Amino acid sequence: MVKESNVDVLVIGAGPAGLMAGNALVRAGVNVRVIDKRPKKVVAGQADGIQPRTIEVFQSYGIAEPLIRQGNQMHLVAFYNPSPSGGITRDGRAPDVSAPSARYPFEITLHQGAIEAIFLDSMRQYGLQIDRPVIPTAIKLDDRPEVLESLDSYPVEVTLNHLSDEQEETSETEIVHAKYVLGADGAHSWVRGQLNFTMDGEQTDYVWGVVDMIPETTDFPDIRNRVAIHSTNGSCMVIPREGDVVRLYIQLSDDDAREVINAKGRIDKTRWTPQRLMAIAKRSFQPYTIEFPEEVNWWTLYIIGQRVASSFSLKERIFIAGDACHTHSPKAGQGMNASMNDSHNLAWKIAYVLRGWADPSILKTYELERRKYAQDLIDFDRKFAKLFSGKPRTEENHDGVTHDEFLAAFQQFGGFSTGIGIQYSPSQLTHPDNQPLAVQIEIGKRMPPQIVLSAANGRPYELQDFLPSDTRFKIVVFAGDLDAQVQRGRVEAFASGLGREGGVLKRFGDRTKGSKSGQEEGGEVKGIVKRKPWEEVFEILTVMAGKKETVNYTSVPTILRSHWTKVFVDDVDTQGVRGGKAYLTYGISPEGAVVVVRPDGYVGMVASLEGGAADVETYFASFMRPSTLP
Amino acid sequence: MVKESNVDVLVIGAGPAGLMAGNALVRAGVNVRVIDKRPKKVVAGQADGIQPRTIEVFQSYGIAEPLIRQGNQMHLVAFYNPSPSGGITRDGRAPDVSAPSARYPFEITLHQGAIEAIFLDSMRQYGLQIDRPVIPTAIKLDDRPEVLESLDSYPVEVTLNHLSDEQEETSETEIVHAKYVLGADGAHSWVRGQLNFTMDGEQTDYVWGVVDMIPETTDFPDIRNRVAIHSTNGSCMVIPREGDVVRLYIQLSDDDAREVINAKGRIDKTRWTPQRLMAIAKRSFQPYTIEFPEEVNWWTLYIIGQRVASSFSLKERIFIAGDACHTHSPKAGQGMNASMNDSHNLAWKIAYVLRGWADPSILKTYELERRKYAQDLIDFDRKFAKLFSGKPRTEENHDGVTHDEFLAAFQQFGGFSTGIGIQYSPSQLTHPDNQPLAVQIEIGKRMPPQIVLSAANGRPYELQDFLPSDTRFKIVVFAGDLDAQVQRGRVEAFASGLGREGGVLKRFGDRTKGSKSGQEEGGEVKGIVKRKPWEEVFEILTVMAGKKETVNYTSVPTILRSHWTKVFVDDVDTQGVRGGKAYLTYGISPEGAVVVVRPDGYVGMVASLEGGAADVETYFASFMRPSTLP
Repeated sequence: MVKESNVDVLVIGAGPAGLMAGNALVRAGVNVRVIDKRPKKVVAGQADGIQPRTIEVFQSYGIAEPLIRQGNQMHLVAFYNPSPSGGITRDGRAPDVSAPSARYPFEITLHQGAIEAIFLDSMRQYGLQIDRPVIPTAIKLDDRPEVLESLDSYPVEVTLNHLSDEQEETSETEIVHAKYVLGADGAHSWVRGQLNFTMDGEQTDYVWGVVDMIPETTDFPDIRNRVAIHSTNGSCMVIPREGDVVRLYIQLSDDDAREVINAKGRIDKTRWTPQRLMAIAKRSFQPYTIEFPEEVNWWTLYIIGQRVASSFSLKERIFIAGDACHTHSPKAGQGMNASMNDSHNLAWKIAYVLRGWADPSILKTYELERRKYAQDLIDFDRKFAKLFSGKPRTEENHDGVTHDEFLAAFQQFGGFSTGIGIQYSPSQLTHPDNQPLAVQIEIGKRMPPQIVLSAANGRPYELQDFLPSDTRFKIVVFAGDLDAQVQRGRVEAFASGLGREGGVLKRFGDRTKGSKSGQEEGGEVKGIVKRKPWEEVFEILTVMAGKKETVNYTSVPTILRSHWTKVFVDDVDTQGVRGGKAYLTYGISPEGAVVVVRPDGYVGMVASLEGGAADVETYFASFMRPSTLP
Repeated sequence: MVKESNVDVLVIGAGPAGLMAGNALVRAGVNVRVIDKRPKKVVAGQADGIQPRTIEVFQSYGIAEPLIRQGNQMHLVAFYNPSPSGGITRDGRAPDVSAPSARYPFEITLHQGAIEAIFLDSMRQYGLQIDRPVIPTAIKLDDRPEVLESLDSYPVEVTLNHLSDEQEETSETEIVHAKYVLGADGAHSWVRGQLNFTMDGEQTDYVWGVVDMIPETTDFPDIRNRVAIHSTNGSCMVIPREGDVVRLYIQLSDDDAREVINAKGRIDKTRWTPQRLMAIAKRSFQPYTIEFPEEVNWWTLYIIGQRVASSFSLKERIFIAGDACHTHSPKAGQGMNASMNDSHNLAWKIAYVLRGWADPSILKTYELERRKYAQDLIDFDRKFAKLFSGKPRTEENHDGVTHDEFLAAFQQFGGFSTGIGIQYSPSQLTHPDNQPLAVQIEIGKRMPPQIVLSAANGRPYELQDFLPSDTRFKIVVFAGDLDAQVQRGRVEAFASGLGREGGVLKRFGDRTKGSKSGQEEGGEVKGIVKRKPWEEVFEILTVMAGKKETVNYTSVPTILRSHWTKVFVDDVDTQGVRGGKAYLTYGISPEGAVVVVRPDGYVGMVASLEGGAADVETYFASFMRPSTLP
C-alpha cells in the first residue's frame, strides 16, 4: 500500500533556493517539507559568492554571523591589462562594492556546502530536516476553480520515490498532497520540465574553466583581491576564498573551446584537465609568477549562456525558483544570490495566504517581481560576459575592450550586481505614491540601512536589525521633533488614526488564532516584551528627530512605543562617529513621514503623518483580509 | 588513606578572579585545577558591571561575543539634582565612557551568574571544570630556597575537603601538591587569612542598599540610562540591566543607617526590607513616578569601605587576587573588573615560568603592577563615594556637593574608571625608553585599538583582534612607506637583525618542547598557517604606510610577513569611514617604530627600526631564558 500524506508546502530541491524557502517557511510556522535527491549535502566547489544584499537578507533571518565568520571578504577589485612591455600590469584598484548604501560593503566567498550548512543548522532549530535521497516521479494539479480557490484544499499531488542511500534504488513510494509546491531543483529542473515551461534565451561560444586550489607560492600582489585580468592570452578572474583558497575563472581560447565541446554542443569534461587550465593561467599572470599545487580542490568547465523560464508558476500553486527559473554565467556572482532571493520573496507571501491573512492574489507578485529581475540579470550578464570574454584593446587590436569601458560597466552595474539596486514594480504590495516624502527610501527597493540611537539609552543600532524577516510588516514612523507643538499634534493624530476602532491595527492586526511568528532573532534586541494582539502582524518603530542629551522617549504616544526598545532618535553616537543622518540620508523633512516595510525588507509604501493613517489603511486593505468584522 | 595529587596551579575560588585565572591558564595549556566551596554557580545579583577595558580583555580571549550579546549597554549617564521647585530635575546627560580611545564606548551590565557562565563554557572547551563543593582546610609552603628555586618542585601543600552537594559535610579529604596556588576566594579570603595578610584601610558611615527589579511603570525618561540622582532625600544611582531589569543603589539616611548596623558595627539585613528601599527611591524620584513590583529579583545592604591587602603573595608561590586583595564600593563598578584583571595580569606570567621560558622573577611584577592599581582604585573610590554620598548643594545647604564638582570628578576619573587609563610601572616587563617614537602608545598601558586594513585585500580589521591573549608577545612593526628607498632600507635592516643567528627570534623563540599556545580564537583571523618555530613565542605584525589602491603586501621582507593576513596598511576603508589614522593617532613618524605588546595586551617597549632589533633583544634578554645555547 502506498503511503499518503498532506503538507502545506512541499519544496523540491535543497540547494540554496530550496533551503532559503524551507528555512523561511519553518520559521514562519508553516507546515513545510523539503526533499532532495542527493544523499548528502554538497561539500566543495559550485557557487560561492554572496552579495551585499544577500548578506542583509541573511542578517534579517539571524544567520549572517556564521556566514561572515566563516567567509572570505572581498573589498577591492583590481584590474590588470596588457602591458606595452608584454605581460600584464595593474591599471588600478577600486572598491568591489560601489553601491553607497551597502550595509556590508563587500562580497563574501564561501563554498556552497558551508552556506547550505548554515541553513540546515537554522532549520534544525525549528525541527525541520531534509528528506533525502528522495526524487519526485509525478506531479499533477487539480485545477478545478473551486479547489484552487479553497484555502483548505490540497490541489497538488506529487509522487515521491524514497531511495536508499547507497544504490539510489527505490525503496518506498509516497504520494504527497500539498497546498503549494516549490520546484527549487536547479538548472535541469524536473518540475519545470513537468510543467512544460521552456527556457528562453541564448548560448554563447565562450567556454570558461574554473579551478579552486591553494597556490603554492606567488608574487602576485592581488591574489587576495577579486581581480579581472584582461591579457592577450585570454581573460581570467581571481576570486579569493575562505582560508587560503583561490578560485580562478579562466577563459579558453576559441581553439580550446572547440576541443572540449562535443557533437551535441555540450561540454565534455573528459577532454580537459585542471592542469591545462592552470597552464593557461600561468601564462596570463606573466610577468608575475604563480606556482600551483598538484592537487586541486575542485574544477569544472562551462559555456556561458543566459536563459529565463517562460513562466514561474502554474496557477500560483506550483512555483519554480532559482536556477530552475534563470541561468547565467557563474562569475558574475549572481546565480546563488538570485536563487535565494527568489525564495525570500515568495516565502512570506505563501505564509500570509496560508494563515488566511492575505488574498491569494499576492502570490502573483512573485513572478511580477522576480521575472523582471531575472530578465535584467541576464541582460546584465550578457553585456558583462561580452566585455569580459572579449579581447582587450592593444596596439594590435584596436577593436578590443578598453579598461575604461570595462571599469565603467563594472561601476554602472554596481547597484545591480550587489543586489542592492533591485526595485520591484508597482502592485498590491508596492504603492508608488508619496515618494517625495522620503526620496531616498525608494518604494519597491529594500529599506536602506541607517544607524540610529535608542532614544531611551543612546545605544547605536542599525535600523535594519529591527526589520527582521519575521513575517511582520514594519510601520516606521519618522516622528520629527516632538518638543515642537505642531509636530506633536501631527504625530498624535497619526497615532490616533492608526489605533482607532476600525483602523489598521484593529482591522488587520487582531489575529487570535493560527499563527506563530518568529521572534526577533534577526536583530540584537533583548527585552521582556508583552505583545499586543496586533504585534503578531505589525511592528511599529518610531524614529524621533532630536538630541540624545535632551530627548525623552516617554514623549512618544504609547501606541507608537510598545516597548522602550522601539523608539529611536536620529543623532550621532557618543563617539561622534555614527548616526545622526537618517532624516538627511532618507530625504525626510522635519514634518516626518511614515514608511511601511514589507516582511521581506522591501518598501511597500510611504505616507505623511498628516492623514497618513488613512493611506496606510488603504495600502493594507488592498491585499489583507480583515481580522475583525467591520 | 588520604588521596594525594600534584597540580601545577591550584586556584581556590571560582568567582570572577578565579574563573579568569582558570580560563587563561587552561587555554595556555597549563595543568590547572579550580576549586570552589559553592555547590552551584551564583544565579542573581552581586557584581554586574563590565568596563570598556574588561570587554577588550574578554575579546582578547574570544569570549566578548556572548557578553555583548547578553548584556545591557550603558552609553549615557544622566545627572539629576534638586530642583528649585522641589523634587529633582535633569541637569544633563553625558557619555558614560569618556575615555577617547575606548574600543567599546560603553559599559555592559549583566548578572554575575551569566558572566561566570561565559568562563565556564570557555573552560569546558579546554576540558576544565570546577571541582565543587570543595573547601581548603590547610595550606603550607615549603620555603627552603632549593625547593623554591626549582622549576620541578611542588612547594605548596593544600589540604582539601570534598563536601557532598546537599549537607556540605566532608565526604573526602585530599592533599594537593601544587607548584603555585592562587587564592581567589573573595573579600573574606581564607587563603589571605592563612597567610596572615591584613586588610589595610578604612570604613565609612555610609550605608547603601541595592535592589534589582523590573519597574511596573514609570514616566522617568532615563530609566534605561545610568543615572546619578542627588536629591535632598538622599542619593540614588540607577543602573539599567539586561532585559528590562533595573538596579537601584539607594543611600540610607544617617538614622536609617544606625538602625541597620548592629552592635558589632556590621549590617543586620533582617532589620530592613527591600520595600523600605523602594519607598526611599520613590521619594527621591519625585516629581517622576515609578511603580515597583511586589517581588524583587535580589537586594542587599552594604557599608562603604576601602581596603587593600598588606601583601599579594607569599614568596611568589602563593598569590591572592580579586576581592581577597582589595574591597571598595560596588557602585563605582570597579570590583569585578579589578578582580578579573588581576588574574589576567598573573596568568601568562605563571605560564611562562612553568614553561621555563622566563625567569621566575617576573612573578614579582604581579604585585608591583596590581597593588599600585588597587591603591589608586580605593583612593578613587573614597573620593567618589564622598562626592556621591554627600548632601547636594541647595539653597539651604551651601556646603553641599555641586553638580559641577560631581561632573568634573566623573570625567576626570573617566580613563581610570573605564579601566583604560591603567599604566603599569617600569620593570623587567615594561621598559619606558623610546616613548617619543610613539607618543600615544603609552608604555605600560594597554595597546590602544585602531582600525587598519589588510594590505592584501583592503578588509578593515581592529588591530587589537591581532593581539589575542594567546601567551605570545606581539612585535608590531610600523614599517612606513616601503616604496621609499631609505625607509625600505631601515625595514630590511630591522628584519635582518630580528632574524639573524643569535637574534631575538632564534635566541628566545625556538621552543621545541613543552608548550601549547592558544590558537587565534581571540580575533577573526582565519587561514591555513604553517607556523615557524618562533611563532610559538612571537607574532610579528607589520603595518605599512600607504594607500590600499597601490600598496603591495609582497614588498614586506618575508620574516615580517609569516602569512598574508599579518600585513596591514594604514588607510581608510572603501567606504571612506574607518581607518587611515594609525600613524597619526599613535604619534608615529614616517620613519616608523616597533612596538612590543605583552601577552596581556600591555605595551612592554618601543623601539626604532634603525638599531631597534638590538633594543628588542635587550628587552627580552631582561627576563626571557634563551631557547638555544649562545
